[in-house]
Amino acid sequence: MTEKNIQIRLKNRPDSTPSVEDFEIFQDEMPVAGDGEILCRSLYLSLDPYMRGQISGRHISGAIPPGEVMRGETISEVVTSNNENFKAGDLVAHQGGWQSWSVAQAADLTPVDRRIKPLSLALGVLGMPGLTAYAGMTYLADLKEGDKLVVSAASGAVGSMVGQIARIMGCEVYGIAGSDEKCRWLVEKAGFAGCVNYKTQDLIAGLKECCPEGIDVYFDNVGGDTLEAAMWQLALGARVVLCGLMAQYNTDVMPPGPNPATIIKARATVRGLVVYDFFDKKQEFLDRIIPWVDGGRIAYREDVTEGLENAPAAFVRLMKGKNFGKTIIRFS
Amino acid sequence: MTEKNIQIRLKNRPDSTPSVEDFEIFQDEMPVAGDGEILCRSLYLSLDPYMRGQISGRHISGAIPPGEVMRGETISEVVTSNNENFKAGDLVAHQGGWQSWSVAQAADLTPVDRRIKPLSLALGVLGMPGLTAYAGMTYLADLKEGDKLVVSAASGAVGSMVGQIARIMGCEVYGIAGSDEKCRWLVEKAGFAGCVNYKTQDLIAGLKECCPEGIDVYFDNVGGDTLEAAMWQLALGARVVLCGLMAQYNTDVMPPGPNPATIIKARATVRGLVVYDFFDKKQEFLDRIIPWVDGGRIAYREDVTEGLENAPAAFVRLMKGKNFGKTIIRFS
Repeated sequence: MTEKNIQIRLKNRPDSTPSVEDFEIFQDEMPVAGDGEILCRSLYLSLDPYMRGQISGRHISGAIPPGEVMRGETISEVVTSNNENFKAGDLVAHQGGWQSWSVAQAADLTPVDRRIKPLSLALGVLGMPGLTAYAGMTYLADLKEGDKLVVSAASGAVGSMVGQIARIMGCEVYGIAGSDEKCRWLVEKAGFAGCVNYKTQDLIAGLKECCPEGIDVYFDNVGGDTLEAAMWQLALGARVVLCGLMAQYNTDVMPPGPNPATIIKARATVRGLVVYDFFDKKQEFLDRIIPWVDGGRIAYREDVTEGLENAPAAFVRLMKGKNFGKTIIRFS
Repeated sequence: MTEKNIQIRLKNRPDSTPSVEDFEIFQDEMPVAGDGEILCRSLYLSLDPYMRGQISGRHISGAIPPGEVMRGETISEVVTSNNENFKAGDLVAHQGGWQSWSVAQAADLTPVDRRIKPLSLALGVLGMPGLTAYAGMTYLADLKEGDKLVVSAASGAVGSMVGQIARIMGCEVYGIAGSDEKCRWLVEKAGFAGCVNYKTQDLIAGLKECCPEGIDVYFDNVGGDTLEAAMWQLALGARVVLCGLMAQYNTDVMPPGPNPATIIKARATVRGLVVYDFFDKKQEFLDRIIPWVDGGRIAYREDVTEGLENAPAAFVRLMKGKNFGKTIIRFS
């Protein structure tokens, strides 16, 4: 039996939260590496909230029309290389997509740093989510020692790194998360000073209790009501980093944002963060964070699903906030 | 006949746009300067949009409850001084309020810079509105030569200074204003490269025509739909200064703001500006701007009303955007 390339393709563009029926599994012919190209076998696939924006056709990175293979970053092993810079057995990160095999150009492959263990961390705390958090804390948040920082979607891949990097840099860190289990993990394992469960607590009251003198730094992954609540609690001179919009990914409308008075009143500085702008900081980020991970100063959780065929269900769970930690597919 | 202190007091807290019936004229006893105090006769009173927020009780500077004298900055002449730092005949700026006489502490009086001519400019281009614009352009907007800047309420006291300071600093400047006459003045007299009349033109289309490659710097005096429209037109790396909220001063609700995607998409930096934070820059501001005014590089308009009794009507006109230039009351 000839091996096939198993793919997950987008079937329908969902109007609201996606369901597994919006995707279909497909068996394509095995791709072949042409001149200068590299054949890669996928080991791990990262599932991320921004993919919902690609499905809607309104993400910065472009649209995925129905019928196309879902995109996404993979950690892959080089199987055949027609390029002198790569050889069989090399481990690489690239946009392999939701499929078991892919063919890539050398320029699109990044060797995985050999210090990264386990390998899947290259998609999480030592991958794009980690770099996102690092860029926000290092380049946009103007962190000062003693700052009270709040982060939403705090137990997620980006959020938990935001909080821990800020904690190590001397801030007092609070999270907003969607379950007591997540909150407990943040406080007990990730060194957060506190956490508000927005599903069971009054968010505004919770934020006031955490930061009675106001929030110095707010890192937002969700938008919507959570952003609104946090913006009214800003301290004078607050810095806000806007990074994700989970609250609106599953709608076709563009909901409004917080009243601009929130920014004026606090003399706040609000900045938009897109990780693509910081790809040139990747080496600096790894050199700085790998020792923290190796030294046990960074706690992390992975939410691993076995088998590409289960990726749609895992993505739906992620969209519903039912993941706990970095969502990853391990290829069987 | 003994002289009286004519005052305008707030009668009712209006729900929407104020009317002259929301104010009442009052003849109070002449105030007397006590030990160390200074008796001042008002010459000019500044009327400003932020006063609407004081009436609503939600301005940073505090509330004016019904029955109280309306507050506001005046240029006054010292008539009696019991303080060695001031003498009869001195010209001072202070919070004299909507009244013909006031008694002040020396610490609350600022001598008017002798270079300011005519005197009323100390309330406009060389006063708080000018300082607001200067602070925004110098300290918050990160101006670069060649930046395309857009300012709303562009023919107002703050807006016209924002545009002209930016123009002199090498930017290409566009305004948003509410009449063809205002737009014409901005282009013909104030050196704006263009102006959109938001009452007769499609604002989004107009902004796209002015800045086809996006807005580099946006200075907002109004909030609401105008802010929303501008935020979707930001260029990559745009800077936004939020200063005023005219669109919501006359409502009791706090309308929402632009979708946060506008900030993320443009990697924008949005800052809140409150002029009180920059009072220590006043000398620097005057030293820099007075030569520009004297040299004819800054055009200005004053919308002067004679007689304190006409202040309520002038304020209502200002709230309806029917003023043209800095709104000032000259005491008879």
